[in-house]
Amino acid sequence: MAGFKHLVVVKFKEGVEEKEVLKGMEKLVSEVDAVKSFEWGEDIESPEMLRQGFTHAFLMTFEKKEDYSAFTSHPSHVEFSATFVAAIDKFVVLDFPSVAGKSPA
Amino acid sequence: MAGFKHLVVVKFKEGVEEKEVLKGMEKLVSEVDAVKSFEWGEDIESPEMLRQGFTHAFLMTFEKKEDYSAFTSHPSHVEFSATFVAAIDKFVVLDFPSVAGKSPA
Repeated sequence: MAGFKHLVVVKFKEGVEEKEVLKGMEKLVSEVDAVKSFEWGEDIESPEMLRQGFTHAFLMTFEKKEDYSAFTSHPSHVEFSATFVAAIDKFVVLDFPSVAGKSPA
Repeated sequence: MAGFKHLVVVKFKEGVEEKEVLKGMEKLVSEVDAVKSFEWGEDIESPEMLRQGFTHAFLMTFEKKEDYSAFTSHPSHVEFSATFVAAIDKFVVLDFPSVAGKSPA
């Protein structure tokens, strides 16, 4: 699906209850209408040499960049971000208009 | 869209013609039926502190893990990978079954 994407790739700190963090994230996306879709996953397949310590990817889709901007300043996001940052050891965040290179048949 | 995801986040080497690399990638996904969908993007919004030097994200979707495995051993992928690796400065690769946390209304 095209749209504007907010991609977050992370490694959690040791001892962090990932399920709790995920619960918070699902609550967040359900509360904010601007988030059109959300999917995530935990790497199960990539060799350490390729995943470089990172373990989880979170991908939110917005209709347009302005919706993403509205999301970042939403009080629920501001509140969740503080919790999230405290739980992660390292991260990469990319925000980009998605280009469809091949669409499902 | 659910399915099995192959996510690649990269920083290209200086002087690399990104368009050429992308052309090769689009050719690759068009040649391999196992790739159900493909989308990519170049970060335009994230502060350097968050994107950590990374600039591009590539996301391929497969129906199931076995299709991804078939893709990795496909001759077109093996050939393209050599070109791709030569073009990038750093990367993170995550391969994961996607969990839909919120679906488009």
